[in-house]
Amino acid sequence: MTPLPAIRPERLLDRLAAFAAIGRTAKGGVDRQALTEGDRAARALLARLARARGFALFQDAAANLFVRREGADSGLPPLLVGSHLDTQPTGGRFDGALGTLAAFELLEALEDAGLATPRAVELVAWTNEEGSRFSPGCLGSQAFAAGRLAPEWLEARAPDGARLGEELAATLAALPEVAMRPLGTPVAAYLELHIEQGPVLEREDVPIGAVSAIQGTRWLEVTMEGAAAHAGTTPLAFRRDPMVAAVAALHHLQTRVMPEDPAARLTVGRIRAEPGSINAVPERVSFSVDIRHPDAGRLAAIEAEVRDVCTASATAQDCTARVAVRFDMAPLAFAEEMIRAVETAAAKAGLASRRLVSGAFHDALFLARVAPAGMIFVPCRDGVSHNEAEDVEPRFSAAGATVLLGGALELLGLAG
Amino acid sequence: MTPLPAIRPERLLDRLAAFAAIGRTAKGGVDRQALTEGDRAARALLARLARARGFALFQDAAANLFVRREGADSGLPPLLVGSHLDTQPTGGRFDGALGTLAAFELLEALEDAGLATPRAVELVAWTNEEGSRFSPGCLGSQAFAAGRLAPEWLEARAPDGARLGEELAATLAALPEVAMRPLGTPVAAYLELHIEQGPVLEREDVPIGAVSAIQGTRWLEVTMEGAAAHAGTTPLAFRRDPMVAAVAALHHLQTRVMPEDPAARLTVGRIRAEPGSINAVPERVSFSVDIRHPDAGRLAAIEAEVRDVCTASATAQDCTARVAVRFDMAPLAFAEEMIRAVETAAAKAGLASRRLVSGAFHDALFLARVAPAGMIFVPCRDGVSHNEAEDVEPRFSAAGATVLLGGALELLGLAG
Repeated sequence: MTPLPAIRPERLLDRLAAFAAIGRTAKGGVDRQALTEGDRAARALLARLARARGFALFQDAAANLFVRREGADSGLPPLLVGSHLDTQPTGGRFDGALGTLAAFELLEALEDAGLATPRAVELVAWTNEEGSRFSPGCLGSQAFAAGRLAPEWLEARAPDGARLGEELAATLAALPEVAMRPLGTPVAAYLELHIEQGPVLEREDVPIGAVSAIQGTRWLEVTMEGAAAHAGTTPLAFRRDPMVAAVAALHHLQTRVMPEDPAARLTVGRIRAEPGSINAVPERVSFSVDIRHPDAGRLAAIEAEVRDVCTASATAQDCTARVAVRFDMAPLAFAEEMIRAVETAAAKAGLASRRLVSGAFHDALFLARVAPAGMIFVPCRDGVSHNEAEDVEPRFSAAGATVLLGGALELLGLAG
Repeated sequence: MTPLPAIRPERLLDRLAAFAAIGRTAKGGVDRQALTEGDRAARALLARLARARGFALFQDAAANLFVRREGADSGLPPLLVGSHLDTQPTGGRFDGALGTLAAFELLEALEDAGLATPRAVELVAWTNEEGSRFSPGCLGSQAFAAGRLAPEWLEARAPDGARLGEELAATLAALPEVAMRPLGTPVAAYLELHIEQGPVLEREDVPIGAVSAIQGTRWLEVTMEGAAAHAGTTPLAFRRDPMVAAVAALHHLQTRVMPEDPAARLTVGRIRAEPGSINAVPERVSFSVDIRHPDAGRLAAIEAEVRDVCTASATAQDCTARVAVRFDMAPLAFAEEMIRAVETAAAKAGLASRRLVSGAFHDALFLARVAPAGMIFVPCRDGVSHNEAEDVEPRFSAAGATVLLGGALELLGLAG
């Protein structure tokens, strides 16, 4: 009888340490931005490990890298698992790497157990998830879902002057023995393990998040204009102060939107007053409003509230308000079957889980356009991510890999 | 019988036009910053006009330029009248020039009438009132009141690299025939005409402001610190958002301080969020608070309110608040006899007047340390100043000069 496949935590942790050494920073974080030499070194290490286990390798025009463990019927679309290997410039050891290496651990566990799967299982390392060196982020998964690379993406320039098109070509050329395949080959389903990048699981002491949705995001830029005036000589009645208007609007929004709707997020991360004199009423105040909600209707309602409140506050100060949409991503609900597979796998492993809405984007958002997709979250220390201090307890890395394997077995119809 | 002295409005307006041509900008304003060639040209023109009327000229180590019409007793301290000739880089035609040239008109009116005054009357053009090219502003009047030039002022550098010490020397050398006198010679009283640089007189259609005080000013810098966090992944309960704290504090202050006390001014001209990401709760928000009040006790009370409110708002968001004082100038009440002299002169000339607190600093603030000092304000269009669009109706320039003359006659005991 075939032994049940099981992940080996020590092997996973060793692999995490080996990849964390590629691009390691002085503060113990990782600088391995997309399509750099560091990124290529990480891909080369993954390819070496894959070949050592006899897995097949493929890459596509977006330099997405696939590791394939063949299934009983090689003609069926594979079950896809993975994440990304690129990091922020001062990134951590787990964002992306955990999901990619847990997927490799899954392939090895199947191989260790000698388990035949009805269809192939493939690991994928998506190109440029972070978007810190080249825009847009999630470039690999977007291209995969669209079946093409948008020509303008190839012209994107890094701050160091490098052009995306050349860096993609150099990255593909660095693994000359890996076969090319077309962008957007069919997929049966996609499952991704990732760190939460937020505080909820840790604070509630729940090791597994069954991600039910990725919330929608809208970035607004509000500009209020009044009249510059001398701070000393201008009485209240003669002021048209856009700072007073901005503060009144923001106070209203900050005391209403999130307090009245626990699923809503409203964040003001940027604000500027012009001309910026200590002793002058500003002529113009502009600020960003990042709003998020899992429900598209509520997201639209919050945007409408921002518009109404800003207009009313500006009018009250005899100022004007303009509201521009800078970015707009609709909410995504993951397929119920995928959420259930994660919950079931967690329960069978004796791990507590809860449903969670992802506040951040992930490659799974784009994969959901072409196949049932799902995500597993594990806690990260203090919710810190995109930071060299990012950390994940070994038991949570192991738990995440266990549920990734269990979820895959559920989806493959091989769970006990 | 000696005719009553009277100002000649056309002569004053011609002189204003002649000085506005020195440093005239394309937009019809004036760029005649302190101790530049333009400033020297204006001083040279004033000296030429003075010599043509037979007035004596003096300058001191701060390059303050004095035009003296001798009195019956040359040993008595003079009545001093004047303002400044320097401008902002994109300044107007009236800020400083009106007060200086109205003072010259006063000397000429006395001369035209052949009126003997019991003491000398002197015009002064103070050096570097604006402070835009060299710090500090009001350098000439500060040095005069202190009786010395602070040695560190001589080391001040202009943005063009020029050193104040050299520019002062070159400016003095440009009028080699003008006798030097010590800094801080005794003064019987000081009266200054200036444009209001605010909207009150114009909106109330009152031609003369009898300035009762210069309000105190305190500049605070508030820094609130919380914790940077992902805008998408961090629920309200896990946020330590200094932007929410800053907005709550500012909303409280903006809806209380000025609305509840018409003499108070509270202005937020600068605000900054760090790191300034659209999609991150900021780690730190800092802003300026410019508070002004004619009463020292109220000024201190408003500062205390800013401190209390900022601390409370920060604490409510689990953030910290620091409040630093960046600048502090105590309020000044002008001598009642000076205010009355202005009111009486206005009434005798059939001009409506009202008492007014100056929101801006002026040279008179420093002169009040060594002699009874007073100021006359006239309306400027839309309250606009420090701007090339600065404008004053001819009837208001004439009214100001009339009250300057009338006030001087009151102080000299020569009023009818």
